[in-house]
Amino acid sequence: MKVAIQGEPASYHSQAAEKFFGKDMELLCCKNFKATFTALAAGKADRAVMAIENSLYGSINEVYDLLLQHKTWIEGEVYLHIQHCLLGLPGTTLRDVKEVHSQAQALAQCEDYLDTRLPHAARFEEYDTAGSVQLIQQRGDRAAAAIASKQASEMYGLQVLARNIETHRQNYTRFVVLRRDKKIVPDASKTSIVITMASDTLPGSLQHALQAFASRNINLTMLQSRPITGRAWHYLFYIDIGVGLADKPLGEAMKEMKQQGCHVDILGTYAPAKT
Amino acid sequence: MKVAIQGEPASYHSQAAEKFFGKDMELLCCKNFKATFTALAAGKADRAVMAIENSLYGSINEVYDLLLQHKTWIEGEVYLHIQHCLLGLPGTTLRDVKEVHSQAQALAQCEDYLDTRLPHAARFEEYDTAGSVQLIQQRGDRAAAAIASKQASEMYGLQVLARNIETHRQNYTRFVVLRRDKKIVPDASKTSIVITMASDTLPGSLQHALQAFASRNINLTMLQSRPITGRAWHYLFYIDIGVGLADKPLGEAMKEMKQQGCHVDILGTYAPAKT
Repeated sequence: MKVAIQGEPASYHSQAAEKFFGKDMELLCCKNFKATFTALAAGKADRAVMAIENSLYGSINEVYDLLLQHKTWIEGEVYLHIQHCLLGLPGTTLRDVKEVHSQAQALAQCEDYLDTRLPHAARFEEYDTAGSVQLIQQRGDRAAAAIASKQASEMYGLQVLARNIETHRQNYTRFVVLRRDKKIVPDASKTSIVITMASDTLPGSLQHALQAFASRNINLTMLQSRPITGRAWHYLFYIDIGVGLADKPLGEAMKEMKQQGCHVDILGTYAPAKT
Repeated sequence: MKVAIQGEPASYHSQAAEKFFGKDMELLCCKNFKATFTALAAGKADRAVMAIENSLYGSINEVYDLLLQHKTWIEGEVYLHIQHCLLGLPGTTLRDVKEVHSQAQALAQCEDYLDTRLPHAARFEEYDTAGSVQLIQQRGDRAAAAIASKQASEMYGLQVLARNIETHRQNYTRFVVLRRDKKIVPDASKTSIVITMASDTLPGSLQHALQAFASRNINLTMLQSRPITGRAWHYLFYIDIGVGLADKPLGEAMKEMKQQGCHVDILGTYAPAKT
């Protein structure tokens, strides 16, 4: 099993892949989300694991857009508790640190720590957390530190200078596991769809669409609007639903929405993971 | 009138400020969104102009979060048609360009052009479009180009190497104009609110909230979910409404939502701008 991820071994993406597939898999490390989707689409990987939402940052817009473009299929989800460490070469002390490297979101999530403990250190945005650790290891530079996971410190032989430096402890990321072809697993009890409204005026259309779920007591766990490219200020809605695609009331609800003129794309149906 | 913006003179933010206030104002240029809000809150500026949504990229999450944290008041909005140019020092040709500098979103919006016309040029993310133009002017480097507006080329004496290099022409940004204290202008016919649900299960609660608007034929122009910090996988909703705060049915709808246990924050009421 070859799994495409954005980032390097010991990145949060690689930990999410390992949590889902176990250790018996091979990583295909990609430089960005687009390249990860392309690797899956081209058959260079069997699966892709993609961060889609963080409990502090919110939705990762680019991944939502790519999901709809690439017509992949969600076969599972993984939640990861994100706990950031500050890592440096062995022997480094906080006083040595003049530069902090990490992925943009990780830097933002540790802003309070950096502002108070390392106010004079310059911050550098890199494409990946574990990639930043690699960079420092390769440069052999004691003036530089990286923000990454504890697992990254072990893999690249760096020292933990500080632990749990994120501002908010309730820091979780949700990842989706993607495959190319549609496959409905027997224990699927969560479904992700995208609806495009018949009418562009809200709440008329959205309210009617939600009514189709509410009247059948179908629970939604997430609702996210995204702009429609080329139609300024018109939106489509990504919705996660608390039942599987085989659920009869869900089928009726989607039928009702289509009758109202809504367009419905199904992104996948899968077993929900524990948060 | 002193207006805080993120970015430098001739940035898209400065053009939005000028579109709203005219030329008779002084800019306070800030390095990021947080600093812009802080400048307004501390009284260093009378107003702030902030990009809040782009028709391709979607909502600018950080600005939504800062709006709720800072309890500012939206007194207006501005739409700007974003048309990117590639700018270089006079005498530069496309063949000379080895580096392209700009703000991350601007680079992303011109990705197709860069991939096909400048595939070997390295891309550098800067904090601002006009700031990138300044950088190249100061460095005097013909191997570097910036993505910014035509106005920036005039202000900093750079040459337009290519025009309209954005992938999609339907590229508009919506900006909000902020003040510290609440003030209801007489021609306010658009209102922005944030609702936090009584119950965390969707669509039960969201559907009921939208029902309060739908039953009164109140139109919503935008609905955006954002995670609640510290409560993983729970959301609040930013909603733009097509009537002013003085509108009687809107008052009734908000009263009904509060009776259902929803918390409602009013972000402002203002005259809608033309898109």
